[in-house]
Amino acid sequence: MRPKRMQAKSKVWIEAGGEVVAGDGKMDLLKRIDETGSIQKAAGQKGMSYRHAWGFLQAMEKRGGIKLVETRIGGREGGGARLTAQGKDFLRRYSAFREGLDEYIEKKFKKAFK
Amino acid sequence: MRPKRMQAKSKVWIEAGGEVVAGDGKMDLLKRIDETGSIQKAAGQKGMSYRHAWGFLQAMEKRGGIKLVETRIGGREGGGARLTAQGKDFLRRYSAFREGLDEYIEKKFKKAFK
Repeated sequence: MRPKRMQAKSKVWIEAGGEVVAGDGKMDLLKRIDETGSIQKAAGQKGMSYRHAWGFLQAMEKRGGIKLVETRIGGREGGGARLTAQGKDFLRRYSAFREGLDEYIEKKFKKAFK
Repeated sequence: MRPKRMQAKSKVWIEAGGEVVAGDGKMDLLKRIDETGSIQKAAGQKGMSYRHAWGFLQAMEKRGGIKLVETRIGGREGGGARLTAQGKDFLRRYSAFREGLDEYIEKKFKKAFK
């Protein structure tokens, strides 16, 4: 047998009460809402339906016990959306948590399997 | 809403050619084969059938291109099994890779969400 080229893979997420609150995908959605000011646009960028994105947000808020997004006048789809202060804080903290983590895991893997 | 107590979760594994070669579960099986000298006993300790464990080993070897376990005289179930030198080396390297990783992720999470 010839050893094949291996690589480390990882997945990181946050739970509360045994339920998934956030992972890279959900936080990317949140980041895009922050950038575009619209759930519709953020969902579209991810190839996701508005309904699906809305469900994600509801689940994150309920499971985490944090109000993350507020929708503005014009209705859910018309008036846009923005992150609450807590939503921005959560996004910032999650980014700090994720920053450099994949690189650390990769480095540790390479060191062990060099 | 009252923010709930959150915790970081993670999963780490090794792939080759887009297929999973090893993760904590499979490596624990390998470790137990090393300790017990028997696939049957190692599988039993994990509440797994011999057939299931054997399938795991075959997949790991094929996907990784490494001969990990050799079975001894007496047949697959009768004579016991032991890790090859490459199998021991792989187990040792995987342990070095995993060592402290969960703690690092937890620490990084706590720092970001303190």
